[in-house]
Amino acid sequence: MKNNIILVLFVCLLASCMQNKTQKEQIADPLPSWNDGTSKTTIIGYVRDVTNKESANYIPVEDRIAAFDNDGTLWCEQPMYIEMAYSLDMAKTIIADKPELAKKKELQDLVNKELFAKNPEKAILEAFALSHTGMSTDEFANNSIAWLDTAMNKHFKAKYTSLIYQPMVELLQYLRDNEFKTYIVSGGSSAFIRQVSQQLYGIPAEQVIGTMFKAEFVSKDGSYQVMYTPELWHNDDNVGKPVGIEQIIGKRPVLAFGNSDGDLQMLQWTTTNASYQYLCLLLHHTDGEREFAYDSLSSIGTLKNALIEANRKDWTVVDMKNDFKTVFSFQK
Amino acid sequence: MKNNIILVLFVCLLASCMQNKTQKEQIADPLPSWNDGTSKTTIIGYVRDVTNKESANYIPVEDRIAAFDNDGTLWCEQPMYIEMAYSLDMAKTIIADKPELAKKKELQDLVNKELFAKNPEKAILEAFALSHTGMSTDEFANNSIAWLDTAMNKHFKAKYTSLIYQPMVELLQYLRDNEFKTYIVSGGSSAFIRQVSQQLYGIPAEQVIGTMFKAEFVSKDGSYQVMYTPELWHNDDNVGKPVGIEQIIGKRPVLAFGNSDGDLQMLQWTTTNASYQYLCLLLHHTDGEREFAYDSLSSIGTLKNALIEANRKDWTVVDMKNDFKTVFSFQK
Repeated sequence: MKNNIILVLFVCLLASCMQNKTQKEQIADPLPSWNDGTSKTTIIGYVRDVTNKESANYIPVEDRIAAFDNDGTLWCEQPMYIEMAYSLDMAKTIIADKPELAKKKELQDLVNKELFAKNPEKAILEAFALSHTGMSTDEFANNSIAWLDTAMNKHFKAKYTSLIYQPMVELLQYLRDNEFKTYIVSGGSSAFIRQVSQQLYGIPAEQVIGTMFKAEFVSKDGSYQVMYTPELWHNDDNVGKPVGIEQIIGKRPVLAFGNSDGDLQMLQWTTTNASYQYLCLLLHHTDGEREFAYDSLSSIGTLKNALIEANRKDWTVVDMKNDFKTVFSFQK
Repeated sequence: MKNNIILVLFVCLLASCMQNKTQKEQIADPLPSWNDGTSKTTIIGYVRDVTNKESANYIPVEDRIAAFDNDGTLWCEQPMYIEMAYSLDMAKTIIADKPELAKKKELQDLVNKELFAKNPEKAILEAFALSHTGMSTDEFANNSIAWLDTAMNKHFKAKYTSLIYQPMVELLQYLRDNEFKTYIVSGGSSAFIRQVSQQLYGIPAEQVIGTMFKAEFVSKDGSYQVMYTPELWHNDDNVGKPVGIEQIIGKRPVLAFGNSDGDLQMLQWTTTNASYQYLCLLLHHTDGEREFAYDSLSSIGTLKNALIEANRKDWTVVDMKNDFKTVFSFQK
């Protein structure tokens, strides 16, 4: 009888320890690099609501799809998109190897950034085509990994790969802790972003959707390669984002996060989710000291129409200056 | 002192219970619908080896990508591909609604299966274009779900959705239990397969890669749709399979399973995995009683070159008649 009492006490003690642990976990701040305020409250309130089985807004795990833009949303896009910097560096290397190319006026304009000043979209696609195609998927991976390993952003005197927003890294982890599947849906190329998405954001290669060039399977003497051709296959920006999501995921996101007009259609598409409560977020770059302050007048990450629509539709506008306690971890 | 002994005994008992459970799990046959033999031994041996942390062949969880063909590998493709049956039924409905279409000779040939007899690939693409495009992704989903819910295969007098191979369903589950990520890589359309992949195979929509038509985002009066156009965007068969895998997954599979020459390049691509031990499998339809016996002479699921290569390269050829204890669960 006495032994039974001891057993019961032991089990109670064990249960109590487990409960304490759960309570502690709930109290710990899942987003320590976010200041307290409406944005943080909205995000945490949404996640708690849709993951609560008792809530009318409960979303089953398999439909917890969260889509994030990359440039300007997860990492810094100023003073130049990181992948554009890669493309220009590669273009210079390619031209140095082939002096006959260096003479071409349009390539000079491209590497001197004159084309970018005149027509950014054309410059990006030309630089991408030159640096991303006419090679195998393995060659592209090796080239881009080698560059990402060492290349520096001169403004911050920091490696490009360190220019990831600490609050966004925490948000991605918080969502995954709550069994969301986190995706990147980017105007950049999936081939490039994939090389670092796991390491920087905890997002595996197969959850990256981006711009893609047409590719071909080449079989030669019993060895096999997939080669990128210069023909654009999918431009994953603007209207391309909801299309990429439909073709590749085949489910509506319940949460989408962008920072520019290029993300507007992805956010609009998220609002068509008839089955579930959704959350649309827009990062407004308001911090000229720790990062850059820009919106409607910037040629990189132009934010005008999406901001108007966000205000009209009551989407959550995250204000970098006020909402981010830390921007980059190296600034702590 | 006495109480301490009881506590220790209690903990030992608990530990012993847990160990027994683990041992039982190990002893339970993970593939009960497979007969004992080389195929089953090879599969289980491979999975145990590459998931064993002590093994030189250990594969980290994030790289355990398994790619499965669908038609003829996961579900029956005879006497006609299931999606082709859907397309022909839909084509008849569309023509019935539009009498001016019924007069067209090429559409008559299509619905009468004459075109299929002459040129199967052309017939499939035409029937697909007619039944899959010129509508929104939501409309297509609704149409195909309604059909899959009721349509019957006349040969088996069974619903098409019951024509899934029980041993393959078990294999998919066994791989997922061992933390493989299971993908479908099919010549059929991802739009169609996605409607049932979770329910039939436990494979979520976002892990289905298939043939795709170009799609467009349409915004009208504040409502949004993604519309399929008749232009083919990706033909996920033959050389299209490794291309689809590279573009969408961005990782080499470590295990690939097909049944026809349309899977040859996917299997070849899997052998280029430089980092890990791979397993290539081919299902040979040898059972004319429980299913169909066919290979090199069949216009559906032609198997000739892939079988030659499988024998030459020592890939695992699964013999349906001898290796499958059960084919369909309704035949049990």
